Amino acid sequence: MKINGKHYRSIEVLENGWSVRIFDQRKLPWELAFVELTHRDQAARAIREMWTRGAPLLAATGVYGLCLALREDASDGNLKKSYDLLLATRPTAVNLRWALDEMIAAVKPLQGDERVKAAYRRAQEICDEDVEINRRIGLNGLPLLREHAKKNQGRPVNILTHCNAGWLATVDYGTVTSPIYMAHDEGIRVHVWVDETRPRNQGASLTAFELAQHGVPHTVIADNAGGHLMQRGEVDLCIVGTDRVVRNGDVCNKIGTYLKALAAYDNNVPFYVALPYPTIDYTLESGEKIPIEERSAEEVTHIEGQNQDGKIEKIKITQSPAANPAFDITPARYVAGYITERGLFKRIPESTGQPLKAASGMV
Amino acid sequence: MKINGKHYRSIEVLENGWSVRIFDQRKLPWELAFVELTHRDQAARAIREMWTRGAPLLAATGVYGLCLALREDASDGNLKKSYDLLLATRPTAVNLRWALDEMIAAVKPLQGDERVKAAYRRAQEICDEDVEINRRIGLNGLPLLREHAKKNQGRPVNILTHCNAGWLATVDYGTVTSPIYMAHDEGIRVHVWVDETRPRNQGASLTAFELAQHGVPHTVIADNAGGHLMQRGEVDLCIVGTDRVVRNGDVCNKIGTYLKALAAYDNNVPFYVALPYPTIDYTLESGEKIPIEERSAEEVTHIEGQNQDGKIEKIKITQSPAANPAFDITPARYVAGYITERGLFKRIPESTGQPLKAASGMV
Repeated sequence: MKINGKHYRSIEVLENGWSVRIFDQRKLPWELAFVELTHRDQAARAIREMWTRGAPLLAATGVYGLCLALREDASDGNLKKSYDLLLATRPTAVNLRWALDEMIAAVKPLQGDERVKAAYRRAQEICDEDVEINRRIGLNGLPLLREHAKKNQGRPVNILTHCNAGWLATVDYGTVTSPIYMAHDEGIRVHVWVDETRPRNQGASLTAFELAQHGVPHTVIADNAGGHLMQRGEVDLCIVGTDRVVRNGDVCNKIGTYLKALAAYDNNVPFYVALPYPTIDYTLESGEKIPIEERSAEEVTHIEGQNQDGKIEKIKITQSPAANPAFDITPARYVAGYITERGLFKRIPESTGQPLKAASGMV
Repeated sequence: MKINGKHYRSIEVLENGWSVRIFDQRKLPWELAFVELTHRDQAARAIREMWTRGAPLLAATGVYGLCLALREDASDGNLKKSYDLLLATRPTAVNLRWALDEMIAAVKPLQGDERVKAAYRRAQEICDEDVEINRRIGLNGLPLLREHAKKNQGRPVNILTHCNAGWLATVDYGTVTSPIYMAHDEGIRVHVWVDETRPRNQGASLTAFELAQHGVPHTVIADNAGGHLMQRGEVDLCIVGTDRVVRNGDVCNKIGTYLKALAAYDNNVPFYVALPYPTIDYTLESGEKIPIEERSAEEVTHIEGQNQDGKIEKIKITQSPAANPAFDITPARYVAGYITERGLFKRIPESTGQPLKAASGMV
């Protein structure tokens, strides 16, 4: 996707062929800060401290972290140690585990330089696959937006989203944003309600930034406002991303997603989840089993933004103790469907715990 | 209630017998800023710009605004003009209209000095009545907390609240906080989950401040977190305030209240509304008719807090346009009961649109 008209991926190997360029997304939208990763621990820190975030991009950052580790020490010992260290950075993301396992499979039989080369090759493939996955998610979600546009007869299609499941959370396109960008590009009138997504405000800072760069009309709202907008008929559909979907269809996503799903259900607004297939965790039966990351209280008690001098500043907004669960579980019964690279899977109405069934064919 | 151990009301006539002391609540919890109101327009501004807020306190500020107006010009013309001006400050609050109508009834038959004296007398009565109302709300809500404490067998009673319906929103005690303070004072272990309540953060700044001053254990959370906490069994009951309840029991309250009511319903957590009886608007059949105030986008795009130098600073958190509906409607079907000064009214389970029925007697 484009920033100031120039195409970027959210993660790319630099021209030297080994170091890796990401953005420090904590500084967006105020500053476009490129960061060059040269060591495994820097990649781990980038994940842990959320310089990069979003399940697919975490996975991509993790696999390049492993490349950087092997480049310094390609031994089995370091492979194991680095795998464990990178996996431990964010406990909720299932893509990260999947991607790191892919890397192990690719490099395990090899030694030395061959191992390093294979690592970079597999990492590049994982990134390219992610781009293709997100492009296909866009193609599979696009018909939904066309349908709503047709029904609206010229009135813009109002989409509500939570957090950032845009290209800044993937390698390119994004999951949620992919069909939106495609709809916008083919001339469908879309308007996005962007939940600011406290405590880290990924909606207000990242999603709003992306949409603005792509020229998509959008409005930032407090996380509290979405239910009211649905009651007043101002939301046609919701599309959110996810960090993990389990076997019964329960959805783990950024804290607050569940509340929007409830409101959507209460107002007959279809609630869609856009996801790459590897986000599905077949090892868990239902959502209650997913461990929920409890992040630092300071993310709630403090907030960052731009002060009147144009500098990024952190201010304190309460003197009291705070709790900060980072994800919640949306029960499958509130989900209208899943938009994946393999097709749009609509839930059978009223059923729960049923296997997913494809409503449209694969692209 | 107490601040640093000293008793205050949120609004009081000063010793000179005519000017009125409030707090500039926008500066809490960082600064305890007393403001002396000496003119009607200052009172109107205090309401409009939310130096004071909360339905009962808005009403109290409004009636003293009328006193200040009449003190300068006790004519019928100025009475009418000041009534209209004060009523227009906040369109959603029904108490304000009720209180101003009470004032008109009290002063209409009188002229000159008599009119001014009667105005101050009635204003004082309205404030004293508010204190008594909130005390009785506390007494009527207290049995609920005792029940939960008994059921919890020593585990603290976890109460979730939204926005500020504490003594800073009333003249004293608060509505939501009144039973909580009483329970705490009689030794019941309570813990309050405080929704920060974006965009204005009245929870994180005001409710948290009040609870801290009273020594009540509490934890601030992002508005997104409450549903997750209910799913995990960490909320025993919700209690929220309201700006207006209409005939069918629908509840107008701070934006985001509806989302918590949905989550409470989905998790069998009882959702109570604490309110003074005058908050009930018998002129409206249901909630959809209530006009919803759309406030400034800047309340969403900017946020105030304390910077690292200890100064209050406003920072910008998004570059995009924003929308800011200030209230939403919680349908009566999600409300477990109404805690009022006349008793605790539990809804008949499963029924909607039925007349309210008292579950406990009047205190």
